[in-house]
Amino acid sequence: MPPERNHLILSVALNSTGSAARSWAAAGTKWNRFVDWNHYLRSAQLAHEGVFDIVFVSDHPALQRDNTSRPIHSFDPTVLFSAVAAAVPDIGFLLTASTSYNSPYNLARRLATLDHISGGRVIWNVVSSFNPDIAANFGAAPLPGRAERYRRADEFVQLVKDLWLSWDTPPDEPPDEQLWDAGTARRIDHRGEFFDVTGPLNVPIGPQGHPVISQAGASAAGIDLAAKHADIVYASLLHRTSAVDYRARLRDRALVHGRDPGDLRLLPGLTVILGETRAEAYRKHEALHGHRGEEGLIADFLHRNWATDLPAGLDPDKPLDPALFTWDEGQQRPVGFVKSFAELAAAEEITPRQLVRRVEGGHRLAVGTPHEVADTILDWWSSGAVDGFNIHIPVLPDGIAEFNRHVVPLLRAAGAVPTGYDGSTLRERLKLRDPRNPEPAPSRS
Amino acid sequence: MPPERNHLILSVALNSTGSAARSWAAAGTKWNRFVDWNHYLRSAQLAHEGVFDIVFVSDHPALQRDNTSRPIHSFDPTVLFSAVAAAVPDIGFLLTASTSYNSPYNLARRLATLDHISGGRVIWNVVSSFNPDIAANFGAAPLPGRAERYRRADEFVQLVKDLWLSWDTPPDEPPDEQLWDAGTARRIDHRGEFFDVTGPLNVPIGPQGHPVISQAGASAAGIDLAAKHADIVYASLLHRTSAVDYRARLRDRALVHGRDPGDLRLLPGLTVILGETRAEAYRKHEALHGHRGEEGLIADFLHRNWATDLPAGLDPDKPLDPALFTWDEGQQRPVGFVKSFAELAAAEEITPRQLVRRVEGGHRLAVGTPHEVADTILDWWSSGAVDGFNIHIPVLPDGIAEFNRHVVPLLRAAGAVPTGYDGSTLRERLKLRDPRNPEPAPSRS
Repeated sequence: MPPERNHLILSVALNSTGSAARSWAAAGTKWNRFVDWNHYLRSAQLAHEGVFDIVFVSDHPALQRDNTSRPIHSFDPTVLFSAVAAAVPDIGFLLTASTSYNSPYNLARRLATLDHISGGRVIWNVVSSFNPDIAANFGAAPLPGRAERYRRADEFVQLVKDLWLSWDTPPDEPPDEQLWDAGTARRIDHRGEFFDVTGPLNVPIGPQGHPVISQAGASAAGIDLAAKHADIVYASLLHRTSAVDYRARLRDRALVHGRDPGDLRLLPGLTVILGETRAEAYRKHEALHGHRGEEGLIADFLHRNWATDLPAGLDPDKPLDPALFTWDEGQQRPVGFVKSFAELAAAEEITPRQLVRRVEGGHRLAVGTPHEVADTILDWWSSGAVDGFNIHIPVLPDGIAEFNRHVVPLLRAAGAVPTGYDGSTLRERLKLRDPRNPEPAPSRS
Repeated sequence: MPPERNHLILSVALNSTGSAARSWAAAGTKWNRFVDWNHYLRSAQLAHEGVFDIVFVSDHPALQRDNTSRPIHSFDPTVLFSAVAAAVPDIGFLLTASTSYNSPYNLARRLATLDHISGGRVIWNVVSSFNPDIAANFGAAPLPGRAERYRRADEFVQLVKDLWLSWDTPPDEPPDEQLWDAGTARRIDHRGEFFDVTGPLNVPIGPQGHPVISQAGASAAGIDLAAKHADIVYASLLHRTSAVDYRARLRDRALVHGRDPGDLRLLPGLTVILGETRAEAYRKHEALHGHRGEEGLIADFLHRNWATDLPAGLDPDKPLDPALFTWDEGQQRPVGFVKSFAELAAAEEITPRQLVRRVEGGHRLAVGTPHEVADTILDWWSSGAVDGFNIHIPVLPDGIAEFNRHVVPLLRAAGAVPTGYDGSTLRERLKLRDPRNPEPAPSRS
C-alpha cells in the first residue's frame, strides 16, 4: 500500500441488541438489554479490545415498532456515548443527529461537550430525517420535502461549525486580572434562511478543533452535502463498481466545493455473519432473521421489496431485472438502499437466491468463514475502492468478541489494521484535517 | 424530629470553578478547569464522600461574559452528568433545562436516557429562561413575556411526563415470539397550545418511574408551576419568615392542584464560606470576590443593586429601607433575588454592612466557623422551615472537601444527616411519590 495511506478503518454499529431483527431473542442474551447502558459499554469495550477505530450509534427520534423486531433506536446517543466515553479510551464515537429536529445551538453545544469529555473523539453523522413518524413527534407540520431538508441541513452544518470555531484556544497559563478579552470568543451573528443565531457558543473550542463530520446521503443532494462538509462518508454500496462510481461522484463534488477529495474517507456498511464453515454461517444467517431455511430468507426479501405486488413469474433462481428496483430523487424515503440493489443487479447477473446472501439489512453481507469474511473486507480496501467498513454485528455484544477472535487476526496478518491506538484525537488517528489549520494536509491520492 | 421526617437534604452546586466570581483565580487551582470534565467528576466524587444527596448544575444556553468572572455555564448538563453518573454511584443529578428553548420529545428522551444510565437518579430543574441573550441563540423572535413562557412551561412539563409514562414497565422475562403488544407503548397524541407530539417515547419507562421535577420560581406564576409539578423547590430565601411564608404559599397552591403539600421538598440556596475564626472567614469572603476589605464588598453590593443611581444618603451603617428594592410581576428578569432582599430588609433592621455578610450570589450566606455554619444550616431545618439546602461552594472542587471535613461531622452529630446512602433510586432516598403508583404516600405533615 502507498506509505501515506491510512490503515483500514474499522467502525462497528452498536445499535440495540444487534443488527439482526431477532437479536433480542438470541440464546444466552438478555432480551431487554437495549435499555441497559452496560450493554453498550460492554460492546464498546469489546470494540476497543479489537482496536476498532469507531463505534457508531445511528438514530431515529421515534419508536420503530415491528412485532418481531427489537427497537433499533432508544437512548439518546449524545447522553449514551458520554457515559461510555468516560469509561472507554481511544475509540471514536460516531452518532447520528438530525438537522431537521434539533436547534443548532443546543446540538453544537452537546457535541462540543462530548468532544471535550472524550478528548476529541466525536464524529457527528448528519441526517436530515425522512420519516413522517419523526415529524409527528415535533409538531403539526408535515415533513418538509427533500430539497428543503437539504438546504436546511447545509445551513445547519455550516452554522454549527461556525459556533464550534467561535472561540480561540484558551491558553493553559492563567490570565492576569481580566479573564476575557474581545478575541476570546466571538459572536457569529448568523442570519440565514432557516436560522438566526448570535453566538458565541458557551463551550470553548475542543481538543480536535471540532467534531469530525460524517454523512451518508445517496441522493444527489446527499452526495453534495457530504462532498461539501463530511470527513467520513457512510453509504450502502453492494458492488465494487458502485463504490468506485460513488467515490468518483464524491470526488467531483468535493472539487466543486474547493476541497481536497483525499480528505474524504469512504466507509460502506458491511453485515458480518461468521461460521466455522460456510454452511454453518448460512444456518446462522437464517436463524438470526427468524427463518428455518434459505426459502424463508428469499420469501422475506421478496415480501420486503414488493409486498403485495410481487412481479409475476419472479423465479428465485433466475437473474433479477435491475428495472424491478425503482426510485426517484423526489421520494421522501432515502434512495440509497433501493438504488444499491439496482446497481448490484445491473453489475452482475444475480438471482434472488444469491442476492439474499449478498445483502442484509440493506448493507453488503459477508457470510461465511473468517477467511471468507476477511477476504471480503480486504478485497475492496486493497484495491482502493474504500477506506474501511462500518461493520454490522448480528448479536451484540458477543458478536464483536467473535469478530475480534477470528477476523481481526487475519486483517492484522495482512498488514491492514494496527495492533494498538496512536494519535491523541480521532482526527490525528484518521489523518483528518484540523479545522483550525488552514494549511492543506499531505495529499493521500 | 418526627419519626417519618426525611434527613436534612444536602445538595451542592457544581457550576464552573465555584460560586465565587474569582474562583477561577484561586491559588492552587487550574483557571480553565471549567472545561475539564474531570473537574466535575472530582467535585461529584467529593460530594459522594460527604454523602450529599444531590449535585446540581444550573444552566444558561448562552455565554455569560464578565471580564473578571468565570463563565458560569458551559458544558451541556445532560451530557456532562452522563459521564459523571457512569463513574459516581448513589448521588442524585439535578440539572436545569429550559422549556422555552428545547423540544419536549428530545428533552424527555435525553432525561429518560440519563435516568436509565444513572439507575434512577435524575432531577430536572424546570426553567422557562428569562434572558434575551438566550433568545438570540434560538431565532429572530424576542423572548416571550412571562405569562406565555409559564403557560408553555406548564404544557411542556405535562407533555414530558406523559411521554415518560407512555410505556408500561417491560417484564424481565423474555416475550415468546412477539416483542410488542398494543399495551407496551402508547401514543400520547398531544395537541396543545404550543406543542403537537404523537409519541410514544422511544425510551421505556425508567427505574424511578420518571425523573424527579424541581422548580425555582418566585413569581406567582413560578410558585404555581412548582406547586403543580415539582417534587423539589429551590428558592432564594434570606429570612426564616420568608421561608415559612413561601412554604405556606406553595402549600396553598399544591392543594388547589389536588396535591399533598407534604410531597414537596423545599431547598433554598446557601453560600458557605468557612474559616477557623469568623475574622478569617470574613477575609476569605472579601478575597474570593476580588475585594481587599469589607468596604469593597459594600461598594460592590451598592453598585450591583443601584449601579449609577445610588440613592442619596445611603449609609453603610444605617438600616436599609425595604422600599429601595423594587420589582414587579411583569418584569422579564426573575423576581426572586430582589424580592428576597426586600423581605429581609422588612423582617429585621439590617444595614448594608450587615447585609453583605448575610447574602452572596443572591443566596443566603453562612460565613464563619464550622460551628456557626452548621448552626445556620440546622436552625431552619430543625424548625421545619425547610427540608435542606442547596449549598454553593466558593471554590470547586476543594471547598467540598473542606465542607465534608469540618461541617458534615457536626450535622451528623446532630442526627440530621446519614452516614451512608440507602434507597436504590433518588425517589426512594428522598421518600418521593412514584408516579406509577396512584396511592398517596404516607403523610409527612
